[in-house]
Amino acid sequence: MASIFTKIINREIPGHIVAEDDDFIAFLDIMPLVKGHVLVVPKKEVDYIFDLEPELLSGLHLFAQKVAKAMDKTINCTRIGVAVIGLEVPHVHVHLVPLRTMDDINFTRQKLKLSQEELSEIAEQIKKGF
Amino acid sequence: MASIFTKIINREIPGHIVAEDDDFIAFLDIMPLVKGHVLVVPKKEVDYIFDLEPELLSGLHLFAQKVAKAMDKTINCTRIGVAVIGLEVPHVHVHLVPLRTMDDINFTRQKLKLSQEELSEIAEQIKKGF
Repeated sequence: MASIFTKIINREIPGHIVAEDDDFIAFLDIMPLVKGHVLVVPKKEVDYIFDLEPELLSGLHLFAQKVAKAMDKTINCTRIGVAVIGLEVPHVHVHLVPLRTMDDINFTRQKLKLSQEELSEIAEQIKKGF
Repeated sequence: MASIFTKIINREIPGHIVAEDDDFIAFLDIMPLVKGHVLVVPKKEVDYIFDLEPELLSGLHLFAQKVAKAMDKTINCTRIGVAVIGLEVPHVHVHLVPLRTMDDINFTRQKLKLSQEELSEIAEQIKKGF
């Protein structure tokens, strides 16, 4: 069965997409740790990041770098943090999290609940950074 | 002034090194979240990961992949998690953390205190995975 991320890639379910190319896509996490929390995902559905072929792993991080630079320009934060955990959705995803404190990237804490309007605004804001 | 990681690279202070090549090094975090917590560091001293030239960023993650595969073989865990935060030491470092639960990669929780002997044993164990 297609992962929830593949469904976003295929436009079967909506996503707040901020960047996309042939191999990768970036969209807002709908359960963000902080405002502007983005997921970067390879279109190829692989469960574990270290099972990616080296070329795809490298491409994923270079794509994430472009997204992070756009986030740095448009979101008020100290820097962009990176996390790959993968205990939940079985489709590789790199979390890009705007950081001010260490707790901003603590996945055990309560997630934010943002409206579709707020998410749309944040996505538009990040897109201006490219 | 040289960062603490540059001092480990230059053998000015001891480190429990598990892998090294011309551009990158991997050693145990001495304040680990869990046993087998490794830092992967470019020898070039750059503060922020997204300021790395794309070639070095890509090389860093490909080197980290090799280290993570060795960790997967030798450490009892579900998978290896990745985090880059960078609010403390101003020298790029990728955390590779053996995961069982989400809390294993929560940087706000208490760090383990391991003896030099325990750290040496863990480093030797990981080296066998290469």
